[in-house]
Amino acid sequence: MAEGGRGGNKLSRLDGKAPEGSDFANYFCTYAYLYHQKDMLEDHKRTGAYYNAVMQNRRQFKDKVVLDVGTGSGILAIFSAMAGAKKVYAVEATDMAKHARTLVAHNKFEGVIEVVQGTIETIELPEKVDIIISEWMGYFLLRESMLDSVLLARDKFLKPGGALYPSHARMFMAPMRTNASAGRINDFQNAMYGWSEFLKEMKGFYQVDLDCLSESYRKEQKDYYMSTSAWGNVHPSQLMGPGTCFKKYDLHTITIEELKAELDADISMPIVDACGPVDAFCGWFDVEFKGSEENPADDPVKLPTAPDATGPTHWGQQVFMLHPSIDVAAGDSLATKVKVTRQKVNHRLLELDLDVKVTGNSIHATSEPRQFNWHID
Amino acid sequence: MAEGGRGGNKLSRLDGKAPEGSDFANYFCTYAYLYHQKDMLEDHKRTGAYYNAVMQNRRQFKDKVVLDVGTGSGILAIFSAMAGAKKVYAVEATDMAKHARTLVAHNKFEGVIEVVQGTIETIELPEKVDIIISEWMGYFLLRESMLDSVLLARDKFLKPGGALYPSHARMFMAPMRTNASAGRINDFQNAMYGWSEFLKEMKGFYQVDLDCLSESYRKEQKDYYMSTSAWGNVHPSQLMGPGTCFKKYDLHTITIEELKAELDADISMPIVDACGPVDAFCGWFDVEFKGSEENPADDPVKLPTAPDATGPTHWGQQVFMLHPSIDVAAGDSLATKVKVTRQKVNHRLLELDLDVKVTGNSIHATSEPRQFNWHID
Repeated sequence: MAEGGRGGNKLSRLDGKAPEGSDFANYFCTYAYLYHQKDMLEDHKRTGAYYNAVMQNRRQFKDKVVLDVGTGSGILAIFSAMAGAKKVYAVEATDMAKHARTLVAHNKFEGVIEVVQGTIETIELPEKVDIIISEWMGYFLLRESMLDSVLLARDKFLKPGGALYPSHARMFMAPMRTNASAGRINDFQNAMYGWSEFLKEMKGFYQVDLDCLSESYRKEQKDYYMSTSAWGNVHPSQLMGPGTCFKKYDLHTITIEELKAELDADISMPIVDACGPVDAFCGWFDVEFKGSEENPADDPVKLPTAPDATGPTHWGQQVFMLHPSIDVAAGDSLATKVKVTRQKVNHRLLELDLDVKVTGNSIHATSEPRQFNWHID
Repeated sequence: MAEGGRGGNKLSRLDGKAPEGSDFANYFCTYAYLYHQKDMLEDHKRTGAYYNAVMQNRRQFKDKVVLDVGTGSGILAIFSAMAGAKKVYAVEATDMAKHARTLVAHNKFEGVIEVVQGTIETIELPEKVDIIISEWMGYFLLRESMLDSVLLARDKFLKPGGALYPSHARMFMAPMRTNASAGRINDFQNAMYGWSEFLKEMKGFYQVDLDCLSESYRKEQKDYYMSTSAWGNVHPSQLMGPGTCFKKYDLHTITIEELKAELDADISMPIVDACGPVDAFCGWFDVEFKGSEENPADDPVKLPTAPDATGPTHWGQQVFMLHPSIDVAAGDSLATKVKVTRQKVNHRLLELDLDVKVTGNSIHATSEPRQFNWHID
């Protein structure tokens, strides 16, 4: 696995190395399936936004050298070539690189696109590039930590004044209502009832008392059912107030160190529509294709992933459920400290901590501040 | 992850090392959850068989030194101590070792049982042992390849004449009927229809022709739907003939090299009940607790996982579906070459190859031999 199944055959003189074993097992392996590539490609809000970002800015791509970080099937490299790029380096760590080579050749771009198999960390290119294009966004924007590799590519390969596609990203949060939250509590309670029955059996059948593990089991189950965020297709009508932006990234200027550091923000989320308590928070992101300061896009494009009555992108939204829910009235706000960190064991996964205090003129503003923690697995 | 989250704190002077990163990510991590331990413990056909194997052979365990390989929650170590063992080394690679320590103390066996965290490959014990007990069996017996570690423990730590619990294992196969097989073909065909629609979209929306990947997608999907074995709770009435044993292991004598080598067998599976074609093969195993030649069990116990009208063990059976099915008549037999190998990328997973020829007096005996391959993931 450490060799990514390639058996050491270099197909491009530029090929680098495969991801190391556990990172491949935990992360990259998913991307080696066409099934998963199809899932992403047929998210037309996603693929269409990239298509528009390139095609509406052909002038930026014409005769330029482009690097596609994590090319997958090769689609963004192909868009870049269609827009007139002189040369595209399409870098892919997994064996999907083979399919990308097939697709590139079949669509007659082998004169322009060079598929390079390896991680960004281990490859070298013979020249600097004018544009880096990449679809690096994970759930809640930062899951997968793939932006690290894009910034590394920027620092290694992007010409001064060169442009990143996308160039900017923003993260949002809003209070919401959902009955999924009550469902989770129910599942958790069922799990604990099952445990109590299990204890009786183990005592009765084998004379072994497992009650000393009950607290650990409760913690494990509570963590699973109540502290793990969920993928959601949230309808805008579920939102109890507008999304509040809590983080902006300018991909041209942020350093890898800043990106890896703890994300802290203080926001106030207004409650506009309050027929019932806040059951959950809804998190999402958008990215924008604006080019760089020196080479701005002629026609900037935005890719939003907010709750949308026309249906979600494949990212959906991340739903962070509350136990118990927070009582609010219209006109209140949620004064919230946001903290996003990477998980210790697997740096591609995230933790979200919220400190929430109801503010405003309603009776709920007297309630105690609440602390929450979730992991985004 | 490489350190299994233990932060280098040794809790027993005997503690060894955690599994390496990708083996942890692919395999060991599951066993670090109480939820999963509960799943195994409440399989009373499993846990009860071990309980009986120990308790009905107390004379074998009385005042003996026992090693439990992969103790998990510590249950087999506790059974051994309840049966009068003088000392039990309970070895566990994951952080489940912490819970095992809690359970051991709570049940007042800390004077007898020493929980040792680490892989068998990296630990040393201060003495040889009289008995090795272990629940190492995976799906289709061999999945997980944990028997490797048990044999290594045997070679490193078992006294001459010492006993393994279990001591013997057998693998079986039988022809069966199931409509799950037709369901899989249907799922596969739907997937391919979805792909053809996807091709049209990609061509129409983005002028990219992905048809060159259709064969690869077909292969990937066929592999997923039709060449992957399934967990099944097979009812005995689905079997079209008795189970045929195709492999026996004497755990006291088999070498690690023999275990790792390709498993080849030639069997003939009789068709007894043939109202319809053979849709699948059903695979299962049993293990027996007979002690060693020098220290035989007083009361041997068997743990079967065959199709059972009273319900399955957590192993269920492995179902290998056929596409298309094989026409047979009662009185025919299936002359079958069986080959079981480990997967190249992950040695804990398996491949099964079957060469099947209908023999007998019916018209079906004239049909061409058929070749099949499945992976057990």
